[in-house]
Amino acid sequence: MNLDVMKKLTYGLFVLTARDGQKDNGCIINTAVQVASEPNTISISVNKANYTHDMILKTGKFNVSILSEEAKFDTFKHFGFQSGRDVDKFAEVEISRADNGIAIIHNEQTNGYLSGKVIQSIDLGSHTLFIATVEDGEVWSDTPSTTYAYYFANIKPKPQPKPKQKGWICTICGYIYEGEVLPDDFICPVCKHPASDFQPL
Amino acid sequence: MNLDVMKKLTYGLFVLTARDGQKDNGCIINTAVQVASEPNTISISVNKANYTHDMILKTGKFNVSILSEEAKFDTFKHFGFQSGRDVDKFAEVEISRADNGIAIIHNEQTNGYLSGKVIQSIDLGSHTLFIATVEDGEVWSDTPSTTYAYYFANIKPKPQPKPKQKGWICTICGYIYEGEVLPDDFICPVCKHPASDFQPL
Repeated sequence: MNLDVMKKLTYGLFVLTARDGQKDNGCIINTAVQVASEPNTISISVNKANYTHDMILKTGKFNVSILSEEAKFDTFKHFGFQSGRDVDKFAEVEISRADNGIAIIHNEQTNGYLSGKVIQSIDLGSHTLFIATVEDGEVWSDTPSTTYAYYFANIKPKPQPKPKQKGWICTICGYIYEGEVLPDDFICPVCKHPASDFQPL
Repeated sequence: MNLDVMKKLTYGLFVLTARDGQKDNGCIINTAVQVASEPNTISISVNKANYTHDMILKTGKFNVSILSEEAKFDTFKHFGFQSGRDVDKFAEVEISRADNGIAIIHNEQTNGYLSGKVIQSIDLGSHTLFIATVEDGEVWSDTPSTTYAYYFANIKPKPQPKPKQKGWICTICGYIYEGEVLPDDFICPVCKHPASDFQPL
């Protein structure tokens, strides 16, 4: 078994948003796919460590804003590399809302959005798989959707590790663990990926 | 709601294979994604009309061969445009098998494969969503995985536009009058509307 094969699967990238009471939050996900056409159904997989995960589990509703090839690294940092438990990610962001009242990211970095209503939540250990009917959606531009591969090749800055530093780098977000031995159960404090996604500096 | 937004989601393309007794079959799918990392779990969505669907529902096992940008249109035709109920798709294909005994497509058109063991099957109407633990997998090449968008832009032949026809079309019913000059007193033989409702092709 070569775990690198998991990186051969193809993904888009999305800002997943939810709203609980007056609290808005959002995170980055790479797993939004249509899983049935009749009725129109999507699935999203969300890491349980994300605050947005808990909001969707509670409210059963979410929006997916589709990031295009114009998406900037700052957007990934803003929604992906910090937690809504610690900061209000919408404090300094101009909020548009879909008909379901949940925020959407509607700017030159996105090409459309979808509104989902959860019909089933499946506990898969590290993640919950939410299956949802598509209640609304629009196309905003012809700019191609970014793929995960495009993000790594063109959007994410290349990591510049210091030459003499000893440690491990998270190949997902670039976080550096300082130390010679990375514990097997280490979880990246930034992007929540496991030790298997780290490589030595 | 603009249903075109569904086309903004990003997908790879895969040959999904199964084996029931001595019978091998395979079809093309675009939905294979990792949905949890601990334990390593994928989901695939398969249209119920596919024979491979029924085999997986029965056996609980499958392989996913990951199509690369080198994949040829003939492969899509072979596995995607005909049913294993009518033809033996593996009759003239050199079969490699993974450890689970199920066929894999291992040639210059694929860059790796995964073996899945179904842990949950979810009926979603037109499709069944299979959730599976990843039991095996290999990487075979560095050729990028094809995306659905790459397939449409570079692999699928472009439809050839028909040479422009001379004549007049009834704007009411679509009937075509073949001839350069439409008589003033012409009446559409289909919907009985007059010449004033026709326009040149």
